[in-house]
Amino acid sequence: MTGIDDLPIRDELRGKSPYGAPQLDVPVRLNTNENPYPLPEPLVRRIAERVTEAARHLNRYPDRDAVELRTALAAYLTRTGGHPVTAAQVWAANGSNEIIQQLLQTFGGPGRTALGFEPSYSMHALISRGTGTGWISGPRGDDFTIDVAAATAEIAAHRPDVVFVCSPNNPTGTAVEAATVLALYEAAQAARADGAGALVVVDEAYGEFSHRPSLLPLIEGRPNLVVSRTMSKAFGAAGLRLGYLAADPAVVDAVQLVRLPYHLSSVTQATALAALEHTDTLLKYVEQLKAERDRLVTELRAIGCEVVTSDANFVQFGRFDDAHAAWQAILDHGVLVRDNGVPGWLRVTAGTPAENDAFLDAVRTLFKERSLKENKR
Amino acid sequence: MTGIDDLPIRDELRGKSPYGAPQLDVPVRLNTNENPYPLPEPLVRRIAERVTEAARHLNRYPDRDAVELRTALAAYLTRTGGHPVTAAQVWAANGSNEIIQQLLQTFGGPGRTALGFEPSYSMHALISRGTGTGWISGPRGDDFTIDVAAATAEIAAHRPDVVFVCSPNNPTGTAVEAATVLALYEAAQAARADGAGALVVVDEAYGEFSHRPSLLPLIEGRPNLVVSRTMSKAFGAAGLRLGYLAADPAVVDAVQLVRLPYHLSSVTQATALAALEHTDTLLKYVEQLKAERDRLVTELRAIGCEVVTSDANFVQFGRFDDAHAAWQAILDHGVLVRDNGVPGWLRVTAGTPAENDAFLDAVRTLFKERSLKENKR
Repeated sequence: MTGIDDLPIRDELRGKSPYGAPQLDVPVRLNTNENPYPLPEPLVRRIAERVTEAARHLNRYPDRDAVELRTALAAYLTRTGGHPVTAAQVWAANGSNEIIQQLLQTFGGPGRTALGFEPSYSMHALISRGTGTGWISGPRGDDFTIDVAAATAEIAAHRPDVVFVCSPNNPTGTAVEAATVLALYEAAQAARADGAGALVVVDEAYGEFSHRPSLLPLIEGRPNLVVSRTMSKAFGAAGLRLGYLAADPAVVDAVQLVRLPYHLSSVTQATALAALEHTDTLLKYVEQLKAERDRLVTELRAIGCEVVTSDANFVQFGRFDDAHAAWQAILDHGVLVRDNGVPGWLRVTAGTPAENDAFLDAVRTLFKERSLKENKR
Repeated sequence: MTGIDDLPIRDELRGKSPYGAPQLDVPVRLNTNENPYPLPEPLVRRIAERVTEAARHLNRYPDRDAVELRTALAAYLTRTGGHPVTAAQVWAANGSNEIIQQLLQTFGGPGRTALGFEPSYSMHALISRGTGTGWISGPRGDDFTIDVAAATAEIAAHRPDVVFVCSPNNPTGTAVEAATVLALYEAAQAARADGAGALVVVDEAYGEFSHRPSLLPLIEGRPNLVVSRTMSKAFGAAGLRLGYLAADPAVVDAVQLVRLPYHLSSVTQATALAALEHTDTLLKYVEQLKAERDRLVTELRAIGCEVVTSDANFVQFGRFDDAHAAWQAILDHGVLVRDNGVPGWLRVTAGTPAENDAFLDAVRTLFKERSLKENKR
């Protein structure tokens, strides 16, 4: 039988495994930062209506420029992001992963480098590899914040072409202050002796869950600053795969040089437009999830966990001598959380109140057993 | 105002324009090889049903491995392609463009090259550029067929990592014989001194319209041979963006190293599954289009055009001293065809009988005017 390594694949792919969380069939899945609330039935019906209309023209290619969708996304950002944005400043793709890929194909790629502050969203590094972009792992402090002095020194030393700033950061939940982003942006521009500057991508996939306002206003007057977003989390539409960015219109023009033509299907555009019509309802779920996220932080601390302050719909908690064993112990209680490979820490997604109770019970049991074991010593 | 060239984009993108046919609002659009027949209403209703079901779980990520869809695609290929195929041999993505991109990210990329026989589908070269893969333009004969001796010599000289064979070829409509593909495959393997071989991608986007059987059986015992397909044309679903490949299971495993996780949305999977349920109906439209394609060839020849023998749902016709002027003259009659930049030639998609009549009338008028002009000289 032929194996992957018998094929003429690229050398850097040899011995690698596909990215993805284990998909296990357990009662409580709090491992991939999904929104636990199914779409409300009126929205489901509206999706069916819009998709029916799109299906009647499915023999034709979709709107290549997704103008209606980008207009609706711009209106949403203008309303919620604290900064007016036009359709010309917005671009959409199949998940924020494809947004990131298009940005790296345009601004990164062979002979260029991207830098992110790790631990962070691992797809930044993986998509860099997939696009031939060199990856530089920048530092975070012990509390998972970005230290401006250390970070700008790293940028000055490596002069990356692309800098990723994930805020709130996945998997730690850490928000980044606007002043920090500005300092990184200035450092990234100054580091490029050729005057062309470097692209700074602020990944706000979890932006709607933050205690702080969006970093969107920072795009004003900064053509090399991009804010990326997704409908997977706040809009409860992980299955839709709709990511988008806001930036200077020139950035939107630039990614069109590498985007696959007609990349965004008619059914995707129709479904996203339907969901955007129901923004108010969906944002109410976001408020519920923020409250549950805050409850998780409080109760985990009461149990005796260390918890990283979270601005996202998930919480990083620990510490464990053996995080993987703790992951398994929680799974044995029917609750799936995520081991992101950050030594000593696990990540739990804020679910429904009942799901969070089940998770907290599992952690309580784990800590009781641990404390019994320690007392026996 | 900031322009693209003020941004730190890659040098090779400077001065380039986004790919895409002009989208003009004219009565008869025969320029992008779309299927002119809207999906039948029972299928539209089935899509709505399936998407409604998917929308009820849209808060969850889609099946990352699209197992149900790949199983249905494998059954379709087994039934129509002359070769039994399993789900493990099939991979699906957002249009065959994304299939090609994933293949190039895995088997091409920086420091590697891809070769195609031009004129051919221009995205092969463009996606090569987008993935950092060097592009080699291989030769075709004056009749747009691939001469085996010339082609294998080119492969031996350049030793490409990936070879594209488009059959039926876009924009010429030319089918490639199995014996030619086999000769190219052998040459591509032999040219690689490292023994790893090279990937040969047979692009059968228009396979269902061919007079000849699919080249699918050639994948048997050839782990470096891939057949790519699309639902855009035969399934009348250009708006769906569903491309797929069939190959050795190892190739399917390999592309998963570079595919973006959850790349294929739940609504895309649901819609494609609905369309596959209606395969028999959709393939009847294919038979109608094949008859119309043959009529276009016959009538264009009767008018006095040169016409390339076509196995696709389009016809390349000429010759014109000034193909762009002819394109404009046909457009002035309300019919949009495609100027692919092949000197002297234009391409017309087989539309409905009425659309094809409108097109033929426009060409007749053009030839009459031309003949009047020549008589006046």
